[in-house]
Amino acid sequence: MSPLAERIAGGDARALARGLSAVENRLPGVDELLADLHDARGSALRIGITGAPGAGKSTLVDCIAKHLRQQGSTIAILAVDPSSPFSGGAILGDRVRMLRHHDDPGVFIRSMASRGQLGGLAPAVGDALTLLDASGHDAVLIETAGAGQSEVDIVQVAGTVAVVLTPSLGDDIQAAKAGIMEIADLFVINKADQPGAQQLEREILASISLIPSGRPKPPILRTAANRCEGTAGLVEALQRVGRRDASPAYWKRRILERVSGEVRAMLESAPAIGAELDRAAEAIAAGRLNPYSYVRQIVDRLRGEWNP
Amino acid sequence: MSPLAERIAGGDARALARGLSAVENRLPGVDELLADLHDARGSALRIGITGAPGAGKSTLVDCIAKHLRQQGSTIAILAVDPSSPFSGGAILGDRVRMLRHHDDPGVFIRSMASRGQLGGLAPAVGDALTLLDASGHDAVLIETAGAGQSEVDIVQVAGTVAVVLTPSLGDDIQAAKAGIMEIADLFVINKADQPGAQQLEREILASISLIPSGRPKPPILRTAANRCEGTAGLVEALQRVGRRDASPAYWKRRILERVSGEVRAMLESAPAIGAELDRAAEAIAAGRLNPYSYVRQIVDRLRGEWNP
Repeated sequence: MSPLAERIAGGDARALARGLSAVENRLPGVDELLADLHDARGSALRIGITGAPGAGKSTLVDCIAKHLRQQGSTIAILAVDPSSPFSGGAILGDRVRMLRHHDDPGVFIRSMASRGQLGGLAPAVGDALTLLDASGHDAVLIETAGAGQSEVDIVQVAGTVAVVLTPSLGDDIQAAKAGIMEIADLFVINKADQPGAQQLEREILASISLIPSGRPKPPILRTAANRCEGTAGLVEALQRVGRRDASPAYWKRRILERVSGEVRAMLESAPAIGAELDRAAEAIAAGRLNPYSYVRQIVDRLRGEWNP
Repeated sequence: MSPLAERIAGGDARALARGLSAVENRLPGVDELLADLHDARGSALRIGITGAPGAGKSTLVDCIAKHLRQQGSTIAILAVDPSSPFSGGAILGDRVRMLRHHDDPGVFIRSMASRGQLGGLAPAVGDALTLLDASGHDAVLIETAGAGQSEVDIVQVAGTVAVVLTPSLGDDIQAAKAGIMEIADLFVINKADQPGAQQLEREILASISLIPSGRPKPPILRTAANRCEGTAGLVEALQRVGRRDASPAYWKRRILERVSGEVRAMLESAPAIGAELDRAAEAIAAGRLNPYSYVRQIVDRLRGEWNP
């Protein structure tokens, strides 16, 4: 094991931060670091938390963290936020939260920008999870900023998914959550003290009723995160449904994410491949090459290697 | 050229619908169809329209379509919507819209679900664009339901991106748009008659001021889509910034999207590969195999093939 891997596995927060940066920037040696830390992983409770913007996810995550800390657990929070390259990717909410927990060494907070991850964000989140688990945290909470398709891919890396809904959002926004309904292991109705909570619960129940029999029905919890109401019950439910181990199906998804991410990174960054792609792109733009024939040719080469 | 490709290139709407289903379901022969129709493509004005849920994108797209129709242009609208496998993926807004345009053969409407696209949604949208262009539409409008990372990938397939913002959305929701600010070729302030439009314009201008000099500054248009106000100016601006040709950089992105999508589809669906992945996933779950070493090994095999 490398010295950095050893320090991370020993719970050194500065080494962990350095390892996460190495993962995000795909520095040389990162594959070995990840392989080492996979072997050194613990059995952290892993929860992904998603929901539409404005549902109160961040506040809820803070309530969960506070409660878990009171139980003596150490926690890592990975906040996956959109950010703009123009603004340098600063994440305001994350800074506010860091200020709130800055004197507690039992809470490790890290944010990850959703742009510019070579090879895709979901594999990068998976890699970060490997580090956060190996560094001895009892629980890792992965929080997304929105509720689109990429967020679905991200929270599934956690293995257990809590979907946060709220009665206060309009129809358009509720429609946007449709894609996340079927990945929920648990539903949270946040801002449950507002009008419409009962109606929202009925809608969730209607949605759940479509789940094929034999699959477990996700529990529905109610919270008011602005006052941390309902947190104890939520944490108990999370500990009941939350995963500490992982199934073959989970690992298959992780492998698929990672192989396609690596292939994409290879295509984008290997100089020889890049030069070939540049030539092809120019020929296509000039009308001398058909993009579909070209892609077919590349994929056939790759397929031949895999399955000779 | 196959009979189906010929009928699509001849403008047959039923053949086009059938071709789009073939693309979505990756039926056999689709690569040849796409290669043929790439060669038969026209020079459609291609616009991607994105923005947070609730910004009024659909209403705005209908206004644009109405105006372009009055100018005598034929239009295709591709609505990319999240949908749940539980509910069968029916898209309500799309049906409402179809009713509105059902007696106008100059408007072709198609929706695409954001879940379950083997190989990723952005390449599938690119393929649909190839068909819609080849079938002789003067303009193709690609509309997303949300504003996350996957929506960024999707609208970039269009080549020209209009970002719709509105003063009426809360802070959380505005934060979610951060990731889309830098891809805009044009900004639309919709619901511009509501309070806060001036403030929103200042924020957009502040964001634009960070664009490196030398790159064009995107224009900012104001609309009130519920009354189709401001549409004429918007359409004029879209026709000015909108792309009808494509650069090498555009084609490089399309190739990258498609190769990584095809690799992913190959991994997910080729029986021999699937069986190998299943065995690996079981070994990982049982603790007998390290996922990082395994992925490294696969990627090295693929790299060896590409770059011997």
